[in-house]
Amino acid sequence: MSLGKFVRTTMKGVTINPMKKLLWIYAILIGTFILYVVQYHTREVSSRAGGAHDGLRGEIGEKYVMVTFQSGMEYWKSSLKGFEDAAQALNVSVEYRGATQYDVHEQITVLEQVIAKKPEGIALSAIDPVRLTAAINKAVDAGIPVVLFDSGAPESRALSFLSTDNYNAGVTAARKMAELLGGQGETAVVTLPGQLNHEERKQGFIDTLHKEYPQIRLQSVKDGRGDRIYSKLAAADILKEFPEVDGIFATEANGGVGVGEAVQEAEAAGKVKIIGFDTDKDTLDMVKKGAISATLAQGTWNMGYWSLQFLFHQHHGLAGPGGGTKAAASSLPRNVDTGITVVTGDNVEQFYAK
Amino acid sequence: MSLGKFVRTTMKGVTINPMKKLLWIYAILIGTFILYVVQYHTREVSSRAGGAHDGLRGEIGEKYVMVTFQSGMEYWKSSLKGFEDAAQALNVSVEYRGATQYDVHEQITVLEQVIAKKPEGIALSAIDPVRLTAAINKAVDAGIPVVLFDSGAPESRALSFLSTDNYNAGVTAARKMAELLGGQGETAVVTLPGQLNHEERKQGFIDTLHKEYPQIRLQSVKDGRGDRIYSKLAAADILKEFPEVDGIFATEANGGVGVGEAVQEAEAAGKVKIIGFDTDKDTLDMVKKGAISATLAQGTWNMGYWSLQFLFHQHHGLAGPGGGTKAAASSLPRNVDTGITVVTGDNVEQFYAK
Repeated sequence: MSLGKFVRTTMKGVTINPMKKLLWIYAILIGTFILYVVQYHTREVSSRAGGAHDGLRGEIGEKYVMVTFQSGMEYWKSSLKGFEDAAQALNVSVEYRGATQYDVHEQITVLEQVIAKKPEGIALSAIDPVRLTAAINKAVDAGIPVVLFDSGAPESRALSFLSTDNYNAGVTAARKMAELLGGQGETAVVTLPGQLNHEERKQGFIDTLHKEYPQIRLQSVKDGRGDRIYSKLAAADILKEFPEVDGIFATEANGGVGVGEAVQEAEAAGKVKIIGFDTDKDTLDMVKKGAISATLAQGTWNMGYWSLQFLFHQHHGLAGPGGGTKAAASSLPRNVDTGITVVTGDNVEQFYAK
Repeated sequence: MSLGKFVRTTMKGVTINPMKKLLWIYAILIGTFILYVVQYHTREVSSRAGGAHDGLRGEIGEKYVMVTFQSGMEYWKSSLKGFEDAAQALNVSVEYRGATQYDVHEQITVLEQVIAKKPEGIALSAIDPVRLTAAINKAVDAGIPVVLFDSGAPESRALSFLSTDNYNAGVTAARKMAELLGGQGETAVVTLPGQLNHEERKQGFIDTLHKEYPQIRLQSVKDGRGDRIYSKLAAADILKEFPEVDGIFATEANGGVGVGEAVQEAEAAGKVKIIGFDTDKDTLDMVKKGAISATLAQGTWNMGYWSLQFLFHQHHGLAGPGGGTKAAASSLPRNVDTGITVVTGDNVEQFYAK
């Protein structure tokens, strides 16, 4: 049925003065127009006034930057996913930058380039606890909120640090090692000296063995440089110097895989128990086939997600009572322990990236 | 000008077949109606689809409950303000409940009443680290997310704990005490035995004196029961038993004020240095007039604010990658250290509630 026919059909049998009917129609049209204007105006006002009605929501033009080192490493994917998930939830934009190598100077250069662009916030994993401090403070002085995640710089003026409590992770590693060794034997550590998180994991491991397991002896601590090849060489040295070694704790992901390879090549697989760190695919594959006995999963998604939340709150003056104006109480939480989980053959499947 | 006159004036000089004009007017009205329906439908769809456009926002019908003990205490005001601020930002509702007395059984009863109402989440400050565990786990089993703040229950299955790192607060108190005493003298502690946060503050204080200040001696640790009168009596006993005491650390707000009163009545004000805890008005007044040398301010607003954020994220399945479906990685941050600040006569003004 055409529109014309519809109207004519509808009007059948209706007999009113056409002029009077026209007046009514005009009245309805003008009324609708007025209603539309009033409604539009009301919506404008409520959107200007109301955090309470709009929820937490930024502008898509706000840019928050995540800065790492060895930026291509699979390890960062989960933190970046958390950072991106928070950005999507809050309607803001993110950028990912990083030193491609394990190089302090390169990370300082990248950080200074990011500062020059004046983003709304920076989440940084510091390659070195001391040497990044000046560049971090430079960002803070430029009015750019900085939070640190995963690897900190305690002397800097960064607002917050989100990470695994690494000392406690080392404690957990020591207890798991003691369980694997039946409470006695010889152990060694492959770590990354000079990087605070690795120093803490190592110390938690050593202190706990010393305090709780007097029959487990620590024979050697070697530098794996955060690299698979160097860690493999370090482990090969350990196996040569201490042929009776029963367990090796690698404080870092590449290290665990390198140690696993060295133990396999020495045909000591099964005899030498390995505890790795993190949940990259190579590590998980080795847990699955038993080459690594256990690995420690960090809350890396949390690090990225809550880093962005904290930066967003700081940027919008929401990080304390009264819109963050009461200086002493307006600071973000100082430290966030994102937690760890022990991954073994029993629960390894659920840690593969989906 | 009346509407009728307006329409007649507008129509002056226009001569079209009235029937044809009517058709056009009907067409416009029907078109407007269709446009309205389409627009309404589009808005519905986008609001269903789109976290990205809407920001973080709940429903006003969602209810989150804060549960404390000695619920009338000024101490909780700042945490509750944080809880309320987060609720307003996220467009959800909150309720405040608590045991009116310092009474384990009363808090368990209140918590069970809250559980029965099936709220979307509970933030609890546990009066006892052990005896609240069963009730907390009951809430978790009923599918209600629970986070703990200020005072924890480490064996419970609560998702997260937001608090001052109390051991570190004790370390800070010891260093400040050493500074006030010039590195030597006799000290005592008035605390609240059996409540984990107070045990930790006490231990951090004692360990640090022992390790770093061999010329400062700890003479006495007394129970102030978290009460001004009992703390005053405990301090009076200390002053009688150890007339040479140079400094007293009160691990809790009412205690600091009680100790301050006892020292004043013994006419030892100025001679005996007092370090208190928290920033209630009575404590701040005593810092201002010098009766208390220093007090430690906690990030209490943060405890409330981030408790609500965590509960909101858990309720909405946002507490992990993939909407929290990856069980092992979906948990909230395990521990949040909300930080502390030393308050003295120099900065006391900015800590008064505004």
